[in-house]
Amino acid sequence: MSQLEQAINQEPLTVTHRSQIKRLPQRGEYEREAIYQILDEGLVCHIGFAVDGQPFVIPTAYGRVGDQLYVHGSPASRMLRSLSSGIEVCVNVTLLDGLVLARSAFHHSMNYRSVVIFGTATIVQDSDEKLEALRAFTEHVVPGRWADVRLPSRQEIQGTLVLSLSLTEASAKVRTGPPSDDEADYSLSVWAGVIPLPVVPGAPIADPRLHQEIALPPYVQNYSRTSQR
Amino acid sequence: MSQLEQAINQEPLTVTHRSQIKRLPQRGEYEREAIYQILDEGLVCHIGFAVDGQPFVIPTAYGRVGDQLYVHGSPASRMLRSLSSGIEVCVNVTLLDGLVLARSAFHHSMNYRSVVIFGTATIVQDSDEKLEALRAFTEHVVPGRWADVRLPSRQEIQGTLVLSLSLTEASAKVRTGPPSDDEADYSLSVWAGVIPLPVVPGAPIADPRLHQEIALPPYVQNYSRTSQR
Repeated sequence: MSQLEQAINQEPLTVTHRSQIKRLPQRGEYEREAIYQILDEGLVCHIGFAVDGQPFVIPTAYGRVGDQLYVHGSPASRMLRSLSSGIEVCVNVTLLDGLVLARSAFHHSMNYRSVVIFGTATIVQDSDEKLEALRAFTEHVVPGRWADVRLPSRQEIQGTLVLSLSLTEASAKVRTGPPSDDEADYSLSVWAGVIPLPVVPGAPIADPRLHQEIALPPYVQNYSRTSQR
Repeated sequence: MSQLEQAINQEPLTVTHRSQIKRLPQRGEYEREAIYQILDEGLVCHIGFAVDGQPFVIPTAYGRVGDQLYVHGSPASRMLRSLSSGIEVCVNVTLLDGLVLARSAFHHSMNYRSVVIFGTATIVQDSDEKLEALRAFTEHVVPGRWADVRLPSRQEIQGTLVLSLSLTEASAKVRTGPPSDDEADYSLSVWAGVIPLPVVPGAPIADPRLHQEIALPPYVQNYSRTSQR
């Protein structure tokens, strides 16, 4: 990380009327590092946008390079065509960490880390930045993968629409820990606590057409979401 | 399930210009049962709506009763206040089943099951329906829990805003199976396959204030997301 990047990372994000956490403000978090960590650990973002007042929410993969979030897809995608016209977007990434079982139905909750980003997406035209974004997608999902695969051809790069969204107006919301019950309810004979929901990858399933002599790479064998970066 | 419910369940949903899967239409699914199964297995939905053209996407818990999806929260919630004014919403529930590692960077993908719902949310005023929705939230997240906990007081019910959204305009999109590589790439010496991402709950963590004599209930001990209903 360069000194400039370090300096930027230590600067909290600008809090705006859109990104400020209004409900349960004690759960709000505006530090860049905290936000980047959630984005780097997540796999899917939900992009919201409106066309003529009609809202759409679309789940998609993403990558991050510095203070830019990248999404990509086919130029034929309805979502990407809408976004590339420069409309306002809201992107959410949520990591569900656990289920919080309180003694009362009312105080049941979830432990989560969630980031919301507001801004306007722009099309990445520059080939180098586009390739860098494609590298970021792959490395975001499976670190180590880029060095192994056939890299995108010129035609594939041209056939991929890449959009970038600046991470300037963003906030995180986090809940951790045990339930918070009403004081009177702590005497009830009801089990209370947390069911953790860690992301635990299953054993890799080889492609039926995989040649037998190709070994499982260590980055697949040891794949984990929690030890990112 | 009543005969009426069975009849409704066997009826495919109406496909509209909003809910029709346009990109990769072979991944589209409009059968009620398929959609309900995804909704019942998921834990968090992402609700999108727009206020004066500004999109918002908010992750939240939900419950389903028949062909109604329920969300709830504090009457002070910005989201719920906006939704209860009768604006258009788009709700997405996505289950990420696995990472699809192709031989080329370009054909990397994800296996997922995703539902999108369009409609207008309305406030649930009727106390009985509200209590039934609160039961559905709890049972959706932890089946068996409702019978164990302190049920909502009249004050808690009044202090909870419950919104319902009819599941009439919805569609699912599903990807399963191994990567689809370009034919020429199958001869490359690159590992290809799927890293499954099942939801595997961790060992329950008792509340630090839990009385020692309270045993872990079987529905927590054997908690699983994949054997729902």
